[in-house]
Amino acid sequence: MPLLVMKFGGTSVADLARIRNAAEKVRREVANGYDVIVIVSAMSGKTNELVGWVGETSPFYDAREYDAVVSSGENVTAGLMALTLQEMDVPARSWQGWQVPLRTSSAHGAARIEEIPRTNIDAKFAEGMKVAVVAGFQGISPEGRITTLGRGGSDTTAVAFAAAFEAERCDIYTDVDGVYTTDPRICDQARKLNRIAFEEMLELASLGAKVLQTRSVELAMRYNVRLRVLSSFEDQTEGAGTLVCAEEEIMESKVVSGVAYSRDEAEVTLVSVADRPGIAAAIFGPLADAGVNVDMIVQNISEEGRTDMTFSCPVDQVARAEKAMKDARDRGEINFHDLVADTAVCKISVVGIGMRSHAGVAARMFRALAEEGINIKVITTSEIKISVLVDRKYMELAVQALHDAFELEKVA
Amino acid sequence: MPLLVMKFGGTSVADLARIRNAAEKVRREVANGYDVIVIVSAMSGKTNELVGWVGETSPFYDAREYDAVVSSGENVTAGLMALTLQEMDVPARSWQGWQVPLRTSSAHGAARIEEIPRTNIDAKFAEGMKVAVVAGFQGISPEGRITTLGRGGSDTTAVAFAAAFEAERCDIYTDVDGVYTTDPRICDQARKLNRIAFEEMLELASLGAKVLQTRSVELAMRYNVRLRVLSSFEDQTEGAGTLVCAEEEIMESKVVSGVAYSRDEAEVTLVSVADRPGIAAAIFGPLADAGVNVDMIVQNISEEGRTDMTFSCPVDQVARAEKAMKDARDRGEINFHDLVADTAVCKISVVGIGMRSHAGVAARMFRALAEEGINIKVITTSEIKISVLVDRKYMELAVQALHDAFELEKVA
Repeated sequence: MPLLVMKFGGTSVADLARIRNAAEKVRREVANGYDVIVIVSAMSGKTNELVGWVGETSPFYDAREYDAVVSSGENVTAGLMALTLQEMDVPARSWQGWQVPLRTSSAHGAARIEEIPRTNIDAKFAEGMKVAVVAGFQGISPEGRITTLGRGGSDTTAVAFAAAFEAERCDIYTDVDGVYTTDPRICDQARKLNRIAFEEMLELASLGAKVLQTRSVELAMRYNVRLRVLSSFEDQTEGAGTLVCAEEEIMESKVVSGVAYSRDEAEVTLVSVADRPGIAAAIFGPLADAGVNVDMIVQNISEEGRTDMTFSCPVDQVARAEKAMKDARDRGEINFHDLVADTAVCKISVVGIGMRSHAGVAARMFRALAEEGINIKVITTSEIKISVLVDRKYMELAVQALHDAFELEKVA
Repeated sequence: MPLLVMKFGGTSVADLARIRNAAEKVRREVANGYDVIVIVSAMSGKTNELVGWVGETSPFYDAREYDAVVSSGENVTAGLMALTLQEMDVPARSWQGWQVPLRTSSAHGAARIEEIPRTNIDAKFAEGMKVAVVAGFQGISPEGRITTLGRGGSDTTAVAFAAAFEAERCDIYTDVDGVYTTDPRICDQARKLNRIAFEEMLELASLGAKVLQTRSVELAMRYNVRLRVLSSFEDQTEGAGTLVCAEEEIMESKVVSGVAYSRDEAEVTLVSVADRPGIAAAIFGPLADAGVNVDMIVQNISEEGRTDMTFSCPVDQVARAEKAMKDARDRGEINFHDLVADTAVCKISVVGIGMRSHAGVAARMFRALAEEGINIKVITTSEIKISVLVDRKYMELAVQALHDAFELEKVA
């Protein structure tokens, strides 16, 4: 029997009416001939309530108890979803993490999935169960305690089940109808993508397109799980949403699939650093130790044994970066004349697997920005991405200019 | 290490402040040198919310899913209580039913406790845990599904743990400060009892004194678990609350310990029943099949082969009783001239283990009622209880008269 995994986030199961709406989508897939594993989140607001209680009870809480409390929201949804399906005459039952059992590491609050044995659920499918409703976000540790998977845990649960059960597809139902060429809130011409490659989705996810958590996309790519992102508030039609899949499944790969942005970036420059072997390590070691997430790094050419070193990081980490650098100078580990921070910059990126085979993408990008009078402060590139740092006031303009330049409004 | 079981009901853990208040009581017992097993209910209101969702989702719900949903409230409290204790520097951890594992029958919604293995919890006590916080009301079936124990389930959980772990005592914290000689709302002179025997408590519990569920008292009696009922909203003092214990522990047993009442009773008489061997079975068999809870039964002496048969049952079961009797008559199984139902009666009972050795209790009771002009309609007696059916309008008066007659205001 072909099998589907369907995942419903918190807003998709926020109340009994929405649970019914979600169950109706599951029922249709059963009618289409699928066995289904449904992964559910807690009803929206519930997890926050539980997290609030834990925080109020104990500011430096025992993560094992945090997990025991916070995981209960998903259990409620799983039971209610199973009951709703039964009311529709669909043979369904709920599964809590320990019943599967979904085995994880002991890293409470951020556990890693280690194993999903198929035995228990397969036995019930063999007995006639059509839908296994699994509480997302949770598992059990080797010590038999309840664990939670951390941010995006339910997406990750869904992908892991799809991999373990060799699902035909993993459908992620959420409150948006797919992945867009860019953020529709800042660019009217943004278009929904029908397909996007795992690698592209990873770049877009980590750049701030919040549709899917990076972690679940990585897992999907590793196990080649076809992911579909779609809205639970619209009727399903053939080809609804966006399919995230292997590059081979994408017939005509576009040069650029999307334009992403990250608003609150800062550019930090160490002026006149003594250029010697090991200087990069001497700078970025202390920054990493201070918890600064350095993103882009540029080193100017050296003149007379000195150079300027520029890096970007989130705006709210600038103070920490500055302190780490001055402390390192005080300790005599590095030497620089001045530290200049520009906290009014943003990052704009174009992403596309087509770049691998198409030359001239960078040139086209830089020209489009130049034509709008936007100065580029820092550039970095990877195989399928080009990112630039520009003044924040140009953010919307830059996104629109690049969307136009790569004709993304023509994407279907 | 001596061990205590402490149970906190829903109103005692209704919010974080009350959980702290309860935890403080636990901390004190740990300071007194005890290992403690705490049994918690769901925060008050939570279970009703969950039950409501299940009922709204599925009127004839799958009891296994009901249990999976409804049990989550206790899990939340258990985690929050463990965190609160940790904040007080008391080594504590939460246990859900399946983690103990508390094994039950498969009767979902009303499961029977079958086994509480000590291994897991004892191992943690040996490692330094001082308090095991256990989610009440829940266990797992032989099939590995979550079960709930039904009404009074958390009290029963507490007593079962006290038996399994040979606890010195099982303290039931609730919103009243103990067991009273009668209901203080209808008799000003009602006094709190310091001690009461299991047998007396059983009679009082089943007669409607709602402090402890009958089932938990039966279990306590069978395993000789000393139960203490006390308020979680008052300071603990030596001898606070009421100790429910074996008769041998009660130094001077009173003739009567309490006066109980049950308001909504009905008296049903089958007039002129053909009196023959097997007639009682022919009447009460169909009543039992119809789900009528027959309480008192009186058969008049037989005259010319016919008799009157009178029984009592809850008011809301009279229609069902009447139908069952008429159907049986239509089937030719019984024969009676008329069925008369009085739906305005109540039951008053005096209970006391001292009755066993004191004659004259019944006479004293009947005289007290007669002096108030209260007519007795039906009488039944057991070894430690005398119950009478009287017109409902005399209920308060009868309770007060009997409280006075047995001088219960002098009970300490």
